Amino acid sequence: MAGEPYERLFGQILADIEAEMRTARQEHRAIAPLLWEIVDYVFGWDLTPEQVVLSRKVSGKKIRPLFMALVAQTIGGDYRHVLPAGAALEFLHNFTLIHDDVMDKSPERRHRPAVWTRWGTTQAINAGDALYALANLACVRLLNTGTPPGKVVRVLQTLSQACLQTAEGQILDVDFEAREDVSPAEYITMVSNKTGTLIEAAAAIGALLSTDDESVVQAYARFGRHLGIAFQIRDDYLGVWGDEARTGKSATSDIRERKKSYPALVGFERARDADGAGLRRLYAQESLSDQDIQAVLAILDRAGAATQTEQVAEHYFRTAMEELASTGIENEAQNLIRQYAAFLVQRTY
Amino acid sequence: MAGEPYERLFGQILADIEAEMRTARQEHRAIAPLLWEIVDYVFGWDLTPEQVVLSRKVSGKKIRPLFMALVAQTIGGDYRHVLPAGAALEFLHNFTLIHDDVMDKSPERRHRPAVWTRWGTTQAINAGDALYALANLACVRLLNTGTPPGKVVRVLQTLSQACLQTAEGQILDVDFEAREDVSPAEYITMVSNKTGTLIEAAAAIGALLSTDDESVVQAYARFGRHLGIAFQIRDDYLGVWGDEARTGKSATSDIRERKKSYPALVGFERARDADGAGLRRLYAQESLSDQDIQAVLAILDRAGAATQTEQVAEHYFRTAMEELASTGIENEAQNLIRQYAAFLVQRTY
Repeated sequence: MAGEPYERLFGQILADIEAEMRTARQEHRAIAPLLWEIVDYVFGWDLTPEQVVLSRKVSGKKIRPLFMALVAQTIGGDYRHVLPAGAALEFLHNFTLIHDDVMDKSPERRHRPAVWTRWGTTQAINAGDALYALANLACVRLLNTGTPPGKVVRVLQTLSQACLQTAEGQILDVDFEAREDVSPAEYITMVSNKTGTLIEAAAAIGALLSTDDESVVQAYARFGRHLGIAFQIRDDYLGVWGDEARTGKSATSDIRERKKSYPALVGFERARDADGAGLRRLYAQESLSDQDIQAVLAILDRAGAATQTEQVAEHYFRTAMEELASTGIENEAQNLIRQYAAFLVQRTY
Repeated sequence: MAGEPYERLFGQILADIEAEMRTARQEHRAIAPLLWEIVDYVFGWDLTPEQVVLSRKVSGKKIRPLFMALVAQTIGGDYRHVLPAGAALEFLHNFTLIHDDVMDKSPERRHRPAVWTRWGTTQAINAGDALYALANLACVRLLNTGTPPGKVVRVLQTLSQACLQTAEGQILDVDFEAREDVSPAEYITMVSNKTGTLIEAAAAIGALLSTDDESVVQAYARFGRHLGIAFQIRDDYLGVWGDEARTGKSATSDIRERKKSYPALVGFERARDADGAGLRRLYAQESLSDQDIQAVLAILDRAGAATQTEQVAEHYFRTAMEELASTGIENEAQNLIRQYAAFLVQRTY
């Protein structure tokens, strides 16, 4: 992930998205000041210039609007007309994170206390709901960039469908945690919805705001869906074998919490005899000691779970790349999409 | 609330909204079957025909889509073109109820276990989020009734603004429960947002889908806002002095939970000397015995809280009626709006 033009375009897009998000936020007169305090905190807008070094870590990667903008740039040579939709998608993504942290009882997000840790569960639910409404309103700002109302409706429809499917994926995820017999294949279906749909929506919206060629829109949509799956499987990999200092969450934390993420499901499917029985016994315990965690890691190692997890992520990544190629579009921005996608799926944090 | 044509039009609108909601719901292929099980339960669609006697109680009053349809009927002599927006608003309202019940830990809704009581807090949060997405998608179906895309965007914008303000009202409500010094006036601001905005949106959308006369849209919007406040204050009244058998929740339950609803705030403001001190002491207790509740009721009685609560509801109701008159429109449907509004603010359940 090197090269100056790459860094320059990324920096420009990130700055423009950030500006658009702030403008969309500032349109609203506060009725409940607490809501806006929470919103500013979530996006790192509470930080002083002196804390700006930290802000890269607390403001999120903005993966979805970045892809949306890059797809628009690839198709039409400009990305500025999609910025309101990019801001909307980033609001939407953060609404899901706020609620996810409540549901998972995750105490931290981006190296700071989660919203519910700081303001309580009730206000976190409310703030998430409000952020979803704010996402819709940010999207309506597309009218200001000359987008025809028919396309604005389509963007809102695409976002809403993605949101519905994300919620369905999340419901399956919770369901799976209580089940004994989830297969790796079922898990992929869940991930495809929980993580894939928002990245699919990002790429699809970037395309549909830049072309009327439906086949191009659909190819970018499939690219996004497959990349989303690859990205989540990579995330699962890092949750077990990641570098604690770089990911910002404890390595092996997914094992400590006995999460049925992809590596564990591969372990359940592949570990035989004493290993299989041992893994089931350990995951049935109320909690795991450090020694237990080492035992799980050894079993996953013998079952080849790390390799298998990496290979599946690689498979979905390759499919995503094929979808990109199928558009027939080749230019610098398309190459940036490839580089950024590769970076995300091969990242170590 | 009598008269045959009244009953007939209401029955027809309710049946049409119900049908539109079911159609909007059936458009979606289930990814997580549990979600759709919850959705069917929330709207009473899980009931067999034999249980249909019960269904009136479990399916909700559908106040918001009813007003939306009546406003459209008043202005243009038909309501069928607004049905997708009515379905959307009913989905939206129920999304807020599902989350409200989680936050308030209310075990029941419409004489049945609340969603969180039956499926747990996590899935209730997810189902609420999904229902919000479903509301947006239901609204996009306005395109099928020949609504121009520009108006569809305006409807989605109006719904989103209402949703944002509802969340802000809810945040203030939670905030107020933790504060000692909330005035009745501050409480009205909270209620205006938490309850008023969705009824305002109902009336405004019914109007804007039926006329381009912005002054008419604004008059109906203000009618809805004021009626919403009157409706909530009446609800507060019934939460203290209501008929338990008819409201479906324990009378005096708001006192038992030491809720700072309008009657209590009037008590805090008006009760003097021993009564004032007594009320503050009782509300500072961890819990209230039956005897304590009787003591609170006696204090509220001496402070004139019941009369004051009724008068304030009546004030907002009268303002709502003045807004209706200001439209200059007079016909049978407008009279039905008056009758239904009066019924809601004078109801005993």
